[in-house]
Amino acid sequence: MASRRPTLRLFAQCKTKRQFNNTWTPRRAASSFQSSGSARQAFSNSRNYLTLAAAGLAVATTLSYKMAVEDPIRCDTPTLAERDQQTKREKGVTDASPMRLRMEKFVKEQQKEIVRALEEADGTPFRVDEWQRKEGGGGITCVLQDGKVFEKAGVGVSVVYGTLPKPAIIKMRANHKNLAQDDNIPDSLEFFAAGLSLIVHPKNPMAPTVHLNYRYFETANPDGSSGAWWFGGGSDLTPSYLFDEDAIQFHKSLKEVCDAHDKEYYPRFKKWCDEYFYNKHRGESRGIGGIFFDDLDETVSDKENTFAFVQDALKSFAPNYISIINKRKDMSFTEKEKEWQQIRRGRYVEFNLVHDRGTAFGLNTPGARVESILMSLPLTARWEYMYEPQPKSREARLVEVLKNPKEWV
Amino acid sequence: MASRRPTLRLFAQCKTKRQFNNTWTPRRAASSFQSSGSARQAFSNSRNYLTLAAAGLAVATTLSYKMAVEDPIRCDTPTLAERDQQTKREKGVTDASPMRLRMEKFVKEQQKEIVRALEEADGTPFRVDEWQRKEGGGGITCVLQDGKVFEKAGVGVSVVYGTLPKPAIIKMRANHKNLAQDDNIPDSLEFFAAGLSLIVHPKNPMAPTVHLNYRYFETANPDGSSGAWWFGGGSDLTPSYLFDEDAIQFHKSLKEVCDAHDKEYYPRFKKWCDEYFYNKHRGESRGIGGIFFDDLDETVSDKENTFAFVQDALKSFAPNYISIINKRKDMSFTEKEKEWQQIRRGRYVEFNLVHDRGTAFGLNTPGARVESILMSLPLTARWEYMYEPQPKSREARLVEVLKNPKEWV
Repeated sequence: MASRRPTLRLFAQCKTKRQFNNTWTPRRAASSFQSSGSARQAFSNSRNYLTLAAAGLAVATTLSYKMAVEDPIRCDTPTLAERDQQTKREKGVTDASPMRLRMEKFVKEQQKEIVRALEEADGTPFRVDEWQRKEGGGGITCVLQDGKVFEKAGVGVSVVYGTLPKPAIIKMRANHKNLAQDDNIPDSLEFFAAGLSLIVHPKNPMAPTVHLNYRYFETANPDGSSGAWWFGGGSDLTPSYLFDEDAIQFHKSLKEVCDAHDKEYYPRFKKWCDEYFYNKHRGESRGIGGIFFDDLDETVSDKENTFAFVQDALKSFAPNYISIINKRKDMSFTEKEKEWQQIRRGRYVEFNLVHDRGTAFGLNTPGARVESILMSLPLTARWEYMYEPQPKSREARLVEVLKNPKEWV
Repeated sequence: MASRRPTLRLFAQCKTKRQFNNTWTPRRAASSFQSSGSARQAFSNSRNYLTLAAAGLAVATTLSYKMAVEDPIRCDTPTLAERDQQTKREKGVTDASPMRLRMEKFVKEQQKEIVRALEEADGTPFRVDEWQRKEGGGGITCVLQDGKVFEKAGVGVSVVYGTLPKPAIIKMRANHKNLAQDDNIPDSLEFFAAGLSLIVHPKNPMAPTVHLNYRYFETANPDGSSGAWWFGGGSDLTPSYLFDEDAIQFHKSLKEVCDAHDKEYYPRFKKWCDEYFYNKHRGESRGIGGIFFDDLDETVSDKENTFAFVQDALKSFAPNYISIINKRKDMSFTEKEKEWQQIRRGRYVEFNLVHDRGTAFGLNTPGARVESILMSLPLTARWEYMYEPQPKSREARLVEVLKNPKEWV
């Protein structure tokens, strides 16, 4: 099944640019990005971090482990990362720039937008950790924890430059024939990957958890020109209490974005989402779905149109989700309802730690920046033995829908 | 490394003997086993459960998935399970019985003993779920949840009769040459496995979590006689706050049991435990260790002596652990200390869901009795982004010891 192909995070051994805070220092809302640098204490443990560059950046292909830890080729010609740095310095990033630079610029702008919108909804500033890879690229991890509205919200951007060794190229060609010619597979290929990932766990059990990820992958031909490329991503909603109107609104917004680009996108990506975010040991979906796609390349649409679709999808997220949050965040709830939310949080942890291929791959990788991977976990979760919702209760209805995904639009 | 060999749970598709309760019905302490049958309401959803027979029964070998779901051979000669049932009916279980029946009897007795001891310490009765496999064997899952002393305690016994297909036999022979002769590998072999697993998560953050598992595996020769056999097991302690005297007592008790049987056991099994229960993505052990061993067969000692060792080890558990609990269960603690315990619980969940091979295998198996596998998870857990203990604090000292396992005796 196309949607169950092994998915993993690209990553690399990294060191931090800024040192991390040892303690959580609350600052005023909506100012994290502007004032974050100076206000920080140096992290008491000053050793360099080996961090995961692409935390949250899932690329669907069976890259070999070796690819990930391989050092970039050392030679006198500038690397892709060095060339891109130079282009940015000399010309800035415009619509005429390589897609790499446009996607990086776009996800960084969107990260700021989304962080600002979530800070405004919560009234609490995010903590911002920025780090760089010595080989080029870097990441920004933004986390809001124990806020007024959100139990935990993580918004991460990562940009990775690296080198694919031959075995990884051969494997990737299963899905991307134009990565190299049959009779001329190079010993290595430089690659670039950039993406934005976010997960938001609200406090109020009536307000749904959301996950989003959009990413771009590209290889460089040996002559330095752009080689194979593809986009991936999606967004899905995980309520503890199901409000049909929220599910409909969430899916409708995604369908509108999809339909504006290709009428086949929504039905295909909706199904793909239901299939991927499935807790098979429980026989139920993680949530009520959304869209999920990968390997969107020239066999589907051209690069400009696909980027336009990804841009529209990402830009539609914040207004859509925050309008749902605003309806739910102040609703009254009982202790029992909070407990049900905690049990659903447990299921979320189960999916992320047992089934999510990117998380598993990242955690099994030496030198990974674990905190950027596990920012996806809720602040708290609960496991009750043999917990069964009362028949015909709201809890039972949710489970019923998770076992039999619905068409919402 | 021997200790990192793939370990998985033997399992089988099962149906319940008794129906499960839909709700948790508290009963008086120390009476669960006696009065459990009649006091129960039928589980409202009366469909048969496909359950995991060997939840908690880890056997270290790379059994193929096929082995696990294969139906037993259907023929006119009685199966091993049927023969054992007949033996039990006609002769009972004595010291002259096959080891299968003696181990089953022993772990069931020990389950009662341990449940009784934990109920006495807590003042709350366990819920008891008993189930049978249609192919023979069955299990008893006992769980105490949200008690006075224990947040969650699960004590499970499982007994499995099944059939190894040829590919599984070939794989298992890597560790157990006497499973079959080189030039005469049968198409299938009947096997038996029985074990006891437990995990106890106390409420008080000063009281440590404990895990224990002892198990026996045997194959039947084509002529019906006992074939290859081995024991496995161990026990390990996971404190949130480290009391050296508890760690010393726990290890000393294990060392005494080991030394009485073989002076090489403790150092070897202590190291194996440190290596197995390791959260490699965190670079720290799950807890302060104990002992862990597998494949203890005739190449190490004879069957009687090995069973005697396993008996002594299992019998020493309750007095040892409960004396530690009694010292810690009423200690005062702050909200901050409870929070640290919850963060450590999160690490426990990470180990069990990411690294524990038996759990992963079980959860990825269709028809598994998920609740028996996940009874090991704590009632509650917590994940804080970038949490770092204060330097030189008690929390920091625990992490230091988890990163550099100590010799306690």
